[in-house]
Amino acid sequence: MPSEHRLKRRVQFYETDLAGIVHFSWFFRYMEEAEHALWRAAGLSIAKFGEEVGYPRLAANCQFHAPLRFEDEFEVRIRVAEITRRTMRYECRLFLGETAIASGSTTIACVSKKLGEPMKAIDFPANVAGRFEVGPAFSA
Amino acid sequence: MPSEHRLKRRVQFYETDLAGIVHFSWFFRYMEEAEHALWRAAGLSIAKFGEEVGYPRLAANCQFHAPLRFEDEFEVRIRVAEITRRTMRYECRLFLGETAIASGSTTIACVSKKLGEPMKAIDFPANVAGRFEVGPAFSA
Amino acid sequence: MPSEHRLKRRVQFYETDLAGIVHFSWFFRYMEEAEHALWRAAGLSIAKFGEEVGYPRLAANCQFHAPLRFEDEFEVRIRVAEITRRTMRYECRLFLGETAIASGSTTIACVSKKLGEPMKAIDFPANVAGRFEVGPAFSA
Amino acid sequence: MPSEHRLKRRVQFYETDLAGIVHFSWFFRYMEEAEHALWRAAGLSIAKFGEEVGYPRLAANCQFHAPLRFEDEFEVRIRVAEITRRTMRYECRLFLGETAIASGSTTIACVSKKLGEPMKAIDFPANVAGRFEVGPAFSA
Repeated sequence: MPSEHRLKRRVQFYETDLAGIVHFSWFFRYMEEAEHALWRAAGLSIAKFGEEVGYPRLAANCQFHAPLRFEDEFEVRIRVAEITRRTMRYECRLFLGETAIASGSTTIACVSKKLGEPMKAIDFPANVAGRFEVGPAFSA
Repeated sequence: MPSEHRLKRRVQFYETDLAGIVHFSWFFRYMEEAEHALWRAAGLSIAKFGEEVGYPRLAANCQFHAPLRFEDEFEVRIRVAEITRRTMRYECRLFLGETAIASGSTTIACVSKKLGEPMKAIDFPANVAGRFEVGPAFSA
Repeated sequence: MPSEHRLKRRVQFYETDLAGIVHFSWFFRYMEEAEHALWRAAGLSIAKFGEEVGYPRLAANCQFHAPLRFEDEFEVRIRVAEITRRTMRYECRLFLGETAIASGSTTIACVSKKLGEPMKAIDFPANVAGRFEVGPAFSA
Repeated sequence: MPSEHRLKRRVQFYETDLAGIVHFSWFFRYMEEAEHALWRAAGLSIAKFGEEVGYPRLAANCQFHAPLRFEDEFEVRIRVAEITRRTMRYECRLFLGETAIASGSTTIACVSKKLGEPMKAIDFPANVAGRFEVGPAFSA
């Protein structure tokens, strides 16, 4: 039962800005990439075609410790930090070698998505709820 | 019946890259913004909620003449260059003051989008086809 | 002396994702657009060409209350929430009409950027420090 | 001497739009990722820190044959199609398994970038010019 995952990633040119470093908005996308890789490792897709369930974000935050630059190969570590019937919270750490680049957290909800109806909070489907568990805290 | 449109736009920080200029992929988004503004000027939305019709791109190209930089205020001029029963081609010019920045072209198709079925080329709906006409060629 | 700013903005097509709503990473870019508009209202540019000073983000967070959809016209309200010699914190609220869409916060630092040297925290230049003041708290 | 390259890539969530498919602007970024991977395979970086040389795009085009969807694993094939003293043109094909997804072309120039001076076309540096050669045409 997956509780954490590690994703290797290389910085792309279009992710940099005029300051010569990765624009901060990309860190939220990197964390999401790791999340979706975690779901795949659990045998799931977070957006399975035809399913009337979705997982919008309730909150996201990130602390930026050091910059990333073009072609840097970094790692995103993600862990499940908290699970309730209707929400899940992840914690992430980004590293460039041994250097801590960023740390963040994202909370998702489970909602029903019926065409023409507003999104409505629901319990995680059983096949999803049973696939994740809270992972050990990051050591540092 | 709209055949052309002009859109004012300011370069945002996250649109620049490490070379200090707007990343070329953004020019295609700028042209799309002008297209959708043209549709609004025609009283239409290119993605009306609940409609089973879509307008994917068949082709897009752009020639880049001069760079755009952070906070530049530029203009996108778009004209309808060609209309068939199932496709529409736009031409675009970007200007920074009098300076020609880029010129490009995009061709869209009209397709039916039914859940679980592949997209299929169809004629433009009557209320769309009747709203556009080919505009005069750009002078330069 | 500007302490707050309001920015009107329309959702673009490329800002939406397969869930039919604006991807959450865009909210951080919307808040940044408002920040840079605030700087312009103060007679400043956050990235003045040739200056060896930069303003990287130390932290950013956002709480998402309701979705934004294609062509929605929303407003970003930003206020200066805290100023120190070397950092500034903004608070933001996004509204679609009267509906609260999101609320967030960003903290920037002031750093020196000399070619080939690592970024180093420095005091805000005098012409920047003197242009901002803490604004009144959001009413709701 | 590299003349072509193949890049494997998975569609990310934030690359999709409300039509449920990858937004067309991403295809230009995918082609650029393959280009930069080709340069790395040639032992080069297209944006080496501290170098006063850059490679802006002169032109880019793409024909879209079939959509890409979330989590699709596709391949970008790039070949050097033409080299002059000051420009290089690439051709690209995107495939999802055996399905042709898109084909495109990009032309880059070599320019000098000195702080405060406009970009100026120059010959490719010797260490770059000697590393690429025109590759065989795509078979289909």
